[in-house]
Amino acid sequence: MSTSEKINLSGWTCPAPLRNYPQVVMGHGSGGKMMADLIGHLFKPLLDNPLLGQMGDSTTFILEQGGRLAFTTDSFVISPIFFPGGSIGELAVNGTINDLAMSGAIPLYLSAAFILEEGLPMTDLGRIVSAFSAAAAAASVQVIAGDTKVVNKGHGDGLYITTTGIGLVPAGIEIAPHRAQPGDAILVSGTMGDHGVAIMSVREGLAFESPIVSDTAPLHGLVQAMITACPNIHCLRDATRGGLAAVLNELAGASSVGIEFGEGRIPVNPAVHGACEMLGLDPLHVANEGKLVAILPRADAEKVLAVMRAHPMGAQAAIIGEVVESHPGMVIARTAIGGTRIVDLPAGELLPRIC
Amino acid sequence: MSTSEKINLSGWTCPAPLRNYPQVVMGHGSGGKMMADLIGHLFKPLLDNPLLGQMGDSTTFILEQGGRLAFTTDSFVISPIFFPGGSIGELAVNGTINDLAMSGAIPLYLSAAFILEEGLPMTDLGRIVSAFSAAAAAASVQVIAGDTKVVNKGHGDGLYITTTGIGLVPAGIEIAPHRAQPGDAILVSGTMGDHGVAIMSVREGLAFESPIVSDTAPLHGLVQAMITACPNIHCLRDATRGGLAAVLNELAGASSVGIEFGEGRIPVNPAVHGACEMLGLDPLHVANEGKLVAILPRADAEKVLAVMRAHPMGAQAAIIGEVVESHPGMVIARTAIGGTRIVDLPAGELLPRIC
Repeated sequence: MSTSEKINLSGWTCPAPLRNYPQVVMGHGSGGKMMADLIGHLFKPLLDNPLLGQMGDSTTFILEQGGRLAFTTDSFVISPIFFPGGSIGELAVNGTINDLAMSGAIPLYLSAAFILEEGLPMTDLGRIVSAFSAAAAAASVQVIAGDTKVVNKGHGDGLYITTTGIGLVPAGIEIAPHRAQPGDAILVSGTMGDHGVAIMSVREGLAFESPIVSDTAPLHGLVQAMITACPNIHCLRDATRGGLAAVLNELAGASSVGIEFGEGRIPVNPAVHGACEMLGLDPLHVANEGKLVAILPRADAEKVLAVMRAHPMGAQAAIIGEVVESHPGMVIARTAIGGTRIVDLPAGELLPRIC
Repeated sequence: MSTSEKINLSGWTCPAPLRNYPQVVMGHGSGGKMMADLIGHLFKPLLDNPLLGQMGDSTTFILEQGGRLAFTTDSFVISPIFFPGGSIGELAVNGTINDLAMSGAIPLYLSAAFILEEGLPMTDLGRIVSAFSAAAAAASVQVIAGDTKVVNKGHGDGLYITTTGIGLVPAGIEIAPHRAQPGDAILVSGTMGDHGVAIMSVREGLAFESPIVSDTAPLHGLVQAMITACPNIHCLRDATRGGLAAVLNELAGASSVGIEFGEGRIPVNPAVHGACEMLGLDPLHVANEGKLVAILPRADAEKVLAVMRAHPMGAQAAIIGEVVESHPGMVIARTAIGGTRIVDLPAGELLPRIC
């Protein structure tokens, strides 16, 4: 399901003008000839399009008619920068595409700002920008603005990427965190916790029988299919930092409603379940990078569920619970043995540098 | 001239819910309650507006009618984060506003992505976000999307800020790097080198009789005044990394024209001139953060110069040279003693971490 399956990371060959620099050095960020070489021989060939080719201080593009635009930004500081199922490159594209998709928008354009640490191997940068480029192409978005800075060794961690996206929201769509209403159904698009556990298992040096890979993937296609089936979706959110628990708490708070769900209804990969037990993690608190939570009228839930399951990004979608009038702002899980428990926001540090 | 003159940096008081944390810790970036506290009690009060208040994964806004939009992104990694004349806060706002302005755009919206280093004093963050907020207000732009990440101590340098901007280009304006034509006049909006020398003097521990301060300032007002006087401006560029020399080389290359200018016509503050001699720097290579270079038809040059000089951001504007047909791609300076010299791109590392 991960886009990384389609991305050949080994394909990047360092072009001749950069071969004197096996690593990024400070001069690559100083506005002179070395920076021009890095941009001209690494970034430009991988990301080029007529708009980026304007090479102005800003890029201009025509929007044929007015409408509702969506705008979002995210910095990616994940450690490690390569992980099972992907790299910071496609993560930075998919993460911002997903934030656009959560307002129902069709993604149009991305900007990419790279903060490189002195000493980053040039081949790592080439592989990551290749993955970035492939993910953008897979999602049919153009990268139309960029920036490159270099910081001294010991003031970064390989590289950080900040992507900002612009999308267009189809007329009549009004998806917002405050729109959940008592009686609404709550759906998730697939298994919870894969991304966070994939990262943690690398960091902890764990190996599993069946490898756990990040679920990084773009969700705008799934969202457009869902909107077609039900234009009146109330809330969408991708369950990244803080996991499903954080998303449900944020939506319960923003809409001043209660949320209840069945613990046993949450799809979790068995390998992720096992790893969470070993690592002392709750899959509800673990980040995903290719899964969404939807809240929509109960009457449309089965229809939307069918559409989701028919889409490659939603094959394991499930209806997990409902919005209630009681206990506004609070999220309650029904446990397997018939009890209930409060599902709170994680307090603080749980899984740092997860995205 | 610096906006920092208007910004009271001492005014930020740490709100009660954050007082348990004199420094940023990893939990402030983990998607849980501590992050909600940081955003709710520090960022939101300083940056709030109805669009940012949507609190969705992306922010949606209506663009009443179509047109040409401008889009740009920049990461700011300056060291130190406080410097004479400003901080990374207003620098991150003004830098992106200026990149929008260089396409003739009226800035509309900004996004802000903060990468915080564990251990950053909370009061430093408060002061910087206050400066960021004041600079945005001074330029009448709204911050409508944001992100906060925290990286471990030793993997950042206080904080990095990435700003991305959207602006609207007035109808009929076509400013682009490839539009310089033989016969065009070349103007600068003021003294060269102030920002870079201000930063270097802090790093080198130098003190001067008259303090050298960064020229960080938003230039969109100046540009709109220039456009009104001459809608047919061919090129605009703010002279940041690489300084005036880099800008002139880029424009000569993009337009396949030659550029000639009189060295003695470049405005340089006497204190900056002295500091450059001491530090072994060429003011032509030193970064500015509130100065632009304009290329426009010779017939309009005096009129535009008068408009620039009447504007607070262009009081020391000057016509410095002209575009020529010979030596395309090459920039030539006429020296004071009647000779000429080639002005090339700086090769590599010159003034790292300058913006």
